[in-house]
Amino acid sequence: MGGEPTRIMLAVNESTIKGYPHASISSRKAFEWTLHKIVRSNTSGFKLLFLHVQVPDEDGFDDMDSVYASPEDFKNLRNRDRAKGLHLLEFFVERCHAIGVGCEAWIKKGDPKEVICHEVKRVQPDFLVVGCRGLGPFQRVFVGTVSEFCVKHAECPVITIKRSAEETPQDPVDD
Amino acid sequence: MGGEPTRIMLAVNESTIKGYPHASISSRKAFEWTLHKIVRSNTSGFKLLFLHVQVPDEDGFDDMDSVYASPEDFKNLRNRDRAKGLHLLEFFVERCHAIGVGCEAWIKKGDPKEVICHEVKRVQPDFLVVGCRGLGPFQRVFVGTVSEFCVKHAECPVITIKRSAEETPQDPVDD
Repeated sequence: MGGEPTRIMLAVNESTIKGYPHASISSRKAFEWTLHKIVRSNTSGFKLLFLHVQVPDEDGFDDMDSVYASPEDFKNLRNRDRAKGLHLLEFFVERCHAIGVGCEAWIKKGDPKEVICHEVKRVQPDFLVVGCRGLGPFQRVFVGTVSEFCVKHAECPVITIKRSAEETPQDPVDD
Repeated sequence: MGGEPTRIMLAVNESTIKGYPHASISSRKAFEWTLHKIVRSNTSGFKLLFLHVQVPDEDGFDDMDSVYASPEDFKNLRNRDRAKGLHLLEFFVERCHAIGVGCEAWIKKGDPKEVICHEVKRVQPDFLVVGCRGLGPFQRVFVGTVSEFCVKHAECPVITIKRSAEETPQDPVDD
């Protein structure tokens, strides 16, 4: 049972409360769970693949005060987005590096649930770990959940890690 | 990251084609997957908890030629069922023993999906592994799936392992 390490893909996103570069509570929870419950001391037996999907900022809400006068401005905007995403991934990569677990990390743009399933198909991890806010059925209707979609559609086994009660913010939609 | 081993519950059942004591294709698949992809060489880091749920034989179809004349007969029947279940569990326990992974195994009677979720609540494993026949949506309506119920209702993370295409019998409802 040596051979190639088990490749675990983790979908990670930024905190909706604190914003970039902070990882969401559920992403951090899923990451720590994977290290403690799966990887344990067998650091050479696993490789973690971190995928961060950025949702395109269609209405430009975050940049209401910006003026776009040239193609260069848009390019700068895209670079800024990218830099934010890289800062998020840095947290996970640094932690892996510190404990000696091999990893890769990358950013994609699009609808998170669609992109995650697409990347699973492309990268073919042994399984996928997704954090989840653990919303009730009522909240789920409006918020939708990436994890439920991945459980149904990803072409690999999927494990969903819920936040624990004490980690849940007052408004459970926050993370 | 030493300490207590990670406790993985596996729900296992008998083959619908070959019957007891043969394990279903999906149970064996889920078990082998857990050993190869999670446990790997770290045999002391994990403990496997095998739960086999026996469905009560309400219509007595398997025993149409039997005559029940006394309470003793029923007791014998129950003992026979139990023996069959133990033979099934023996397969998993022996394999664990051979490779040096700690384990426990037990039998419960009832509706598998309800009993599995109840046992998760009682035993509190770190996560649950369930095999799955990978039925299409049309077959699912009539067959129902234990795995889908557990993903929704079990009070721990759940990972569903599908049979691979080459392991699927001609009739995918068989296993």
